[in-house]
Amino acid sequence: MYRVDINCDMGESFGAYRMGRDEEILSFITSANIACGFHAGGPAVMRKTVDMALEKGVAMGAHPGLPDLEGFGRRNMDITPQEAYDMVVYQIGALYGFVKASGGRLQHVKPHGALYNMAAKNPNLSEAIAEAVYKIDPELILFGLSGSELVKAGQRIGLRTANEVFADRTYQADGTLTSRREPNALITDTEEAVEQVIRMVKEKKVYTMQEQDINIQADTVCIHGDGAHALEFARNIRKLLGQADVLVRAVGEK
Amino acid sequence: MYRVDINCDMGESFGAYRMGRDEEILSFITSANIACGFHAGGPAVMRKTVDMALEKGVAMGAHPGLPDLEGFGRRNMDITPQEAYDMVVYQIGALYGFVKASGGRLQHVKPHGALYNMAAKNPNLSEAIAEAVYKIDPELILFGLSGSELVKAGQRIGLRTANEVFADRTYQADGTLTSRREPNALITDTEEAVEQVIRMVKEKKVYTMQEQDINIQADTVCIHGDGAHALEFARNIRKLLGQADVLVRAVGEK
Amino acid sequence: MYRVDINCDMGESFGAYRMGRDEEILSFITSANIACGFHAGGPAVMRKTVDMALEKGVAMGAHPGLPDLEGFGRRNMDITPQEAYDMVVYQIGALYGFVKASGGRLQHVKPHGALYNMAAKNPNLSEAIAEAVYKIDPELILFGLSGSELVKAGQRIGLRTANEVFADRTYQADGTLTSRREPNALITDTEEAVEQVIRMVKEKKVYTMQEQDINIQADTVCIHGDGAHALEFARNIRKLLGQADVLVRAVGEK
Amino acid sequence: MYRVDINCDMGESFGAYRMGRDEEILSFITSANIACGFHAGGPAVMRKTVDMALEKGVAMGAHPGLPDLEGFGRRNMDITPQEAYDMVVYQIGALYGFVKASGGRLQHVKPHGALYNMAAKNPNLSEAIAEAVYKIDPELILFGLSGSELVKAGQRIGLRTANEVFADRTYQADGTLTSRREPNALITDTEEAVEQVIRMVKEKKVYTMQEQDINIQADTVCIHGDGAHALEFARNIRKLLGQADVLVRAVGEK
Repeated sequence: MYRVDINCDMGESFGAYRMGRDEEILSFITSANIACGFHAGGPAVMRKTVDMALEKGVAMGAHPGLPDLEGFGRRNMDITPQEAYDMVVYQIGALYGFVKASGGRLQHVKPHGALYNMAAKNPNLSEAIAEAVYKIDPELILFGLSGSELVKAGQRIGLRTANEVFADRTYQADGTLTSRREPNALITDTEEAVEQVIRMVKEKKVYTMQEQDINIQADTVCIHGDGAHALEFARNIRKLLGQADVLVRAVGEK
Repeated sequence: MYRVDINCDMGESFGAYRMGRDEEILSFITSANIACGFHAGGPAVMRKTVDMALEKGVAMGAHPGLPDLEGFGRRNMDITPQEAYDMVVYQIGALYGFVKASGGRLQHVKPHGALYNMAAKNPNLSEAIAEAVYKIDPELILFGLSGSELVKAGQRIGLRTANEVFADRTYQADGTLTSRREPNALITDTEEAVEQVIRMVKEKKVYTMQEQDINIQADTVCIHGDGAHALEFARNIRKLLGQADVLVRAVGEK
Repeated sequence: MYRVDINCDMGESFGAYRMGRDEEILSFITSANIACGFHAGGPAVMRKTVDMALEKGVAMGAHPGLPDLEGFGRRNMDITPQEAYDMVVYQIGALYGFVKASGGRLQHVKPHGALYNMAAKNPNLSEAIAEAVYKIDPELILFGLSGSELVKAGQRIGLRTANEVFADRTYQADGTLTSRREPNALITDTEEAVEQVIRMVKEKKVYTMQEQDINIQADTVCIHGDGAHALEFARNIRKLLGQADVLVRAVGEK
Repeated sequence: MYRVDINCDMGESFGAYRMGRDEEILSFITSANIACGFHAGGPAVMRKTVDMALEKGVAMGAHPGLPDLEGFGRRNMDITPQEAYDMVVYQIGALYGFVKASGGRLQHVKPHGALYNMAAKNPNLSEAIAEAVYKIDPELILFGLSGSELVKAGQRIGLRTANEVFADRTYQADGTLTSRREPNALITDTEEAVEQVIRMVKEKKVYTMQEQDINIQADTVCIHGDGAHALEFARNIRKLLGQADVLVRAVGEK
């Protein structure tokens, strides 16, 4: 039977600032990527998010980012692989503290924003990130853009990996996402987005902006927790995947 | 036989800024309190400090502080017990990441600066800190000012605790340290300082500024890693404790 | 004729985080207190807020806070008067940069949150803050809780001051606000809140929780920019003050 | 008569961390570039540095950097021109607060580290920085790498500019500095370094790593305030320039 994981970035509130509808989104996803305080989040938010995920039975992952709170971790920074290693170890550890204190288990690690994007293309950064994950716990699953350098680095070091695809983004012939600066980067129609996911899961193919199919592996699909229609989209993708006989399960679940 | 632990705050450098002579001091101490990035330290420094401590066989502890890098965690902040819990879990976790990645073991937790001082007197803060430590790992040893609320809270929750004394500080009749604002707060003579420690260890007594003895428990003695004579003092206290037949061992060691 | 200023805290968004409905609230107020990046705000937000205030003809003030972004500047910190001086000079200067770059004029300074509350009671902190304001520009107007130490310190040093009152907060017999931890701290009924303001402006009296009138000076009234009814309240207070023949003008306007 | 300015980065201490020998170096330089809290420095350090510079009669400039305290502003960040504008306005303003409070005058602005290097090559960033400087005060002098995009952008907008050269760095045929990663990036011999400066000032030429002369304009020469021989080098360059009949004066001085 076909199966896929649905993941969403979570715990991105900070201090007095609220972001995302985490509690409601948690009802529709199977893996939560929890911000660790560098690009968003913070101790109080991490604790609450871990507790909510545990209560809803959603698998938990660390979502480490660049140390750029004001830029939400979205601005590339010229960091060395060693710096990447250090900041990933620190952030996984910090989240691990809350997970352990709450009696839970950490399932995965997914880098955030610019760190995710830089790692997708840069084998040295990816190797450093994969090493950080592996050294903390070789049972952790590394999430990365499907087919990216990050997934390859994870496999080389001996980690279990999850190829991530996006429901609401269009693809290029080389397997990368169309840049948000391009006009057709986003798929705004829910049915079309879900169709793309179902095809990636069942046929392992995606139709690109260059009007040709490419092969793609879809272990986990990323949805978004903020924006006007986030909740409705989450509900729909969950329902439509079910109707298409695609089992929705956390990657780490048996 | 008498025994005592010697601990020192470590890993307080930050980015391009250097503080302390960690590598050299590590030769004379048995427990290292490693800053976790809130009042000092940071990912790169934590990794290096953990690696140095492992190499020198010094037991490692988390040294969580208030989120006040500019004030070095020395300014009291009006935080709630929940906030104390959260920031302590976060910081222990972050250090735990490096310890685990390096194949080591975390021995203890000692709050830093204003957090340490506030906890010494405030049972609610202390309880929150003790709970944070216990929930992450009930085997961790909680370091606190000898006889303080923090030590009591640790004992109540079921943690092993270490009563901390200071070699180079004078004491008040109520067992607290003489405030640094007072003229006689510091003991600058090395022999006098070591004498005080030896008496605390062997006789469980300290002579106070009020010219009377009080009872005191000395499981671990804190020395300082910066300042002009830090290294010389560290060497001397280690040597003189040995000559006085006091075994210097990490608290957590058998 | 009676007159009063209406002020509101502004520019409290930060990076990707939104807070307050600044643009809409600006239509109803006469003085904007603009966050300066320590407890909220930041370079981009400050520029946008200054430009909006200029466009709407609202007088601008610096709103310096404690360096505690995660706590939104609401947690007391044990800072020295010198530290208060330094952080206030820094933040006024930073906002002044945007005001000058946009061709505007800075009208006032109002400390934020815990800094405001600590200064209200602490003459040493207040003196340091007043000195910071005076040294940067003796023409600036210092906003402080009506009758507080901050207002007194401003007067002593030769600054023009504005006694601030609150529409939606109840008062104690000593002129302080009822703590938010008390059940009756807030006035939730709009008409009642406006009545309180009108009486403070016209009769210079407020009825306290101890069921007696006290004298109070109301130069400027603080309203809030977030919360469900912020906009409606802003519109109403502006309208009802007009109907009561109270002229609403910025403190610094002729 | 030939003349040149000697500038040095200053005020790079932070909280409990000390960096540089500012007070002593100030005796040998004519322009101080004062860190503004983003990559180094902070309110207390800025106040002290401004007061020292005033006392020694050294001209003061803002030294704005990227918001990267841990990386000391040395890691490139992918910021937009608008973000560069905002962070430069903020930081100039903050320093201006201290300069005005101390009764001084701001002479110049010199971006720091990665911001300086990115601006040297990127006309859009440079234009945004030049605009920030101009809008705050068109009398400010913009310091940039000799012949760089930053100097050109300053000239286009109507600012007075200062072409900066380096005493202890070697040059490439295109006028850029040899990267610090290259073996011959640094000139460690004091006399050789001073010779290079004198030739740049008097002959407007520098001999490059490609073994040919290029033209160069030297309005101000940068020396460093930390490192083992900083003080000795500062003393020597000042003395040797005098012996070579090169007048050492702040750029903004008549």
